Amino acid sequence: MKVLVLGGDGYCGWPTALHLSDVGHEVVIVDNFVRRTIDHELGAESLTPIADPKERIKAWQEVSGQTIALEYGDLLDWEFVSEIVQRHQPDAIVHYAEQRAAPYSMIDRRHAVYTQHNNVIGNLNVLFAINEYVPECHLVKLGTMGEYGTPNIDIEEGYIEIEHNGRKDVLPYPKLPGSWYHLTKVHDSHNIHFACRIWGLRATDLNQGVVYGTVTPQAERDLRLINRFDYEDVFGTALNRFCVQAAIGHPLTVYGKGGQTRGFLDIRDTVRCIELAVENPAERGEFRVFNQFTEQFSVGQLAEMVVDAAGKIGVEARIESLPNPRVEKEEHYYNAKHTGLLDLGLEPHYLSDSLLDSLLNIAVEYRDRVDVDHVLPSIDWRKGRSRERVTKAPAEPSAL
Amino acid sequence: MKVLVLGGDGYCGWPTALHLSDVGHEVVIVDNFVRRTIDHELGAESLTPIADPKERIKAWQEVSGQTIALEYGDLLDWEFVSEIVQRHQPDAIVHYAEQRAAPYSMIDRRHAVYTQHNNVIGNLNVLFAINEYVPECHLVKLGTMGEYGTPNIDIEEGYIEIEHNGRKDVLPYPKLPGSWYHLTKVHDSHNIHFACRIWGLRATDLNQGVVYGTVTPQAERDLRLINRFDYEDVFGTALNRFCVQAAIGHPLTVYGKGGQTRGFLDIRDTVRCIELAVENPAERGEFRVFNQFTEQFSVGQLAEMVVDAAGKIGVEARIESLPNPRVEKEEHYYNAKHTGLLDLGLEPHYLSDSLLDSLLNIAVEYRDRVDVDHVLPSIDWRKGRSRERVTKAPAEPSAL
Repeated sequence: MKVLVLGGDGYCGWPTALHLSDVGHEVVIVDNFVRRTIDHELGAESLTPIADPKERIKAWQEVSGQTIALEYGDLLDWEFVSEIVQRHQPDAIVHYAEQRAAPYSMIDRRHAVYTQHNNVIGNLNVLFAINEYVPECHLVKLGTMGEYGTPNIDIEEGYIEIEHNGRKDVLPYPKLPGSWYHLTKVHDSHNIHFACRIWGLRATDLNQGVVYGTVTPQAERDLRLINRFDYEDVFGTALNRFCVQAAIGHPLTVYGKGGQTRGFLDIRDTVRCIELAVENPAERGEFRVFNQFTEQFSVGQLAEMVVDAAGKIGVEARIESLPNPRVEKEEHYYNAKHTGLLDLGLEPHYLSDSLLDSLLNIAVEYRDRVDVDHVLPSIDWRKGRSRERVTKAPAEPSAL
Repeated sequence: MKVLVLGGDGYCGWPTALHLSDVGHEVVIVDNFVRRTIDHELGAESLTPIADPKERIKAWQEVSGQTIALEYGDLLDWEFVSEIVQRHQPDAIVHYAEQRAAPYSMIDRRHAVYTQHNNVIGNLNVLFAINEYVPECHLVKLGTMGEYGTPNIDIEEGYIEIEHNGRKDVLPYPKLPGSWYHLTKVHDSHNIHFACRIWGLRATDLNQGVVYGTVTPQAERDLRLINRFDYEDVFGTALNRFCVQAAIGHPLTVYGKGGQTRGFLDIRDTVRCIELAVENPAERGEFRVFNQFTEQFSVGQLAEMVVDAAGKIGVEARIESLPNPRVEKEEHYYNAKHTGLLDLGLEPHYLSDSLLDSLLNIAVEYRDRVDVDHVLPSIDWRKGRSRERVTKAPAEPSAL
């Protein structure tokens, strides 16, 4: 199948492009490389030294014999979007090309507006291009488990049957997203669902959990294929950040009580989930929703697992609780369903000592590249970006 | 109280500004007059001859002795929004300033993107300005009953208690909006709710039904105060359009089976609801939702009421069913709660023969201004704008 991977230069997009190419699909990466620009803005960079986009693609051709095409452009540019969709006539479009960091969207008004404009309008352009030029094409769209928030009832996959005053209906699951970024994914979901209803588009919305890891079998084949590994407070996800903190002898910084529970998955499962979605398309008119994660942990549990694993390789790590820069519940019920992708054949890589070992080893290997100034949180949900990083407890309670 | 009325030159905004001024509030109209520009784009105009904005305000001062201030600018312009909010220090902001026609948003990609960008980002700017400069200010935001769609269960006011697998929570009511425009109101609701949670803003979201009528006691006091009355297929609401069709001897065009049921209200109740919301602000951190309508009718029922009322004033009218240009259920359950505003003191003007008489009389009075080319639908939910108006049944069934 011919697959466009929008955002194919990013943390999930790049290993996805490699994986889809490896299993035999014709892959076109579409990217405006804004994620690399944001590294410059933040004065941060990937822990792992990532190669230039063209260098990466050349390396992949050398090691695999497979060609990945590259289209440089912005989804806000309709002329660009319509032209590439028309020219490539894809069977599937995997859409990762959105600003994906909650803290980044919380910096200030400008970053909130950038995030909502970029994500919502870019996605609208993709929907219109599919409808106009490739109506049979399957949209595989990355959403987030963060769309649901932390309701006091079980989280279902996209829809819930509600019985109310003696009547019943199956309706979209209510959403309580926790940042301007998470809100964009809710907006996208509503927009895509509507496009499926009026035009009969086929779409799969993947509400992804927090991804950890960096190595996939393809990215391992050449150093130039190495994937991005974010550890700083804006783009770094919890587990990756904890490993880096352990590696540099920094306390593992848990925000607030650490009872915040989320769904997590290995990046090797991310790429496999995309493959499964692409190879099993939604029906015409179907807005299919999967919750894309394999295990639930609290942030506190994760930190403890890293402390244990670090101890086994001779690294002494400790946990420090920081005042929570986010507005979120720190102790709550959490039980989210995630059977759809298992039913399609996903065989999860559960978080194990060996994976933690390997993650810690990567962190140790590259620890000289860590900028310790970027490890502590600098963006507060109530106040935006502060020049001073959060290092001590505030006077008031930080819970929601 | 000092109240900014964003979109205060529009169909609901203008009579709201007059009403709030009349009951003693200090009113500032904020508008970019884009609705007047869209009239030029569509080659259409209000049935009633509306005066220039400054002329209107001058007339109001002459008849009432009250001053309404006017600020010209665009909510997408942060410099403008932040400056007026800072300078006026409002107690309440009534926000009507959004593109509000579903068919307009369905014309093509450009109009969909315009609508979503204008509404979502404009509203974000308002939220940031309130938080930064007037955190005690109460946002009174116009939403729409169309956010809910037509679920098979009772529609509650914003939230619903869900019991699921033995646990309970009160969550945002699930949304199934029916156009790119309606989607923006859903996006806004999610964004505002979040701002209330993180910053403690106070907001009231008014999910308004379909408004009919044009005359309010204030607008009646001088011909220069006359309110807009849209009858064409893009901005004209069902009942107003039916009255004009009767007045010019055109069949009343019901889309599809006519079983589409919606909440309706008199424009005199719109302005009173806003007054009630402004004078009874939400608490800090509260995202309060009211369903703002007074009666439910099906489109077919409305058409029959107009035929009856027309007959009584000697006008012979008939109903014609057109293929439905929209994607919507034409026969469905509909039972929406609307007690919040009644509890605050709303005394509804129910749709009566006398109101229909007066509406028909206005339509007859101005019938020479009707452009009959703009009465039939020209925008299809599946295909966008067509050059030819829909006049005959399509080969395929038009129901959802």
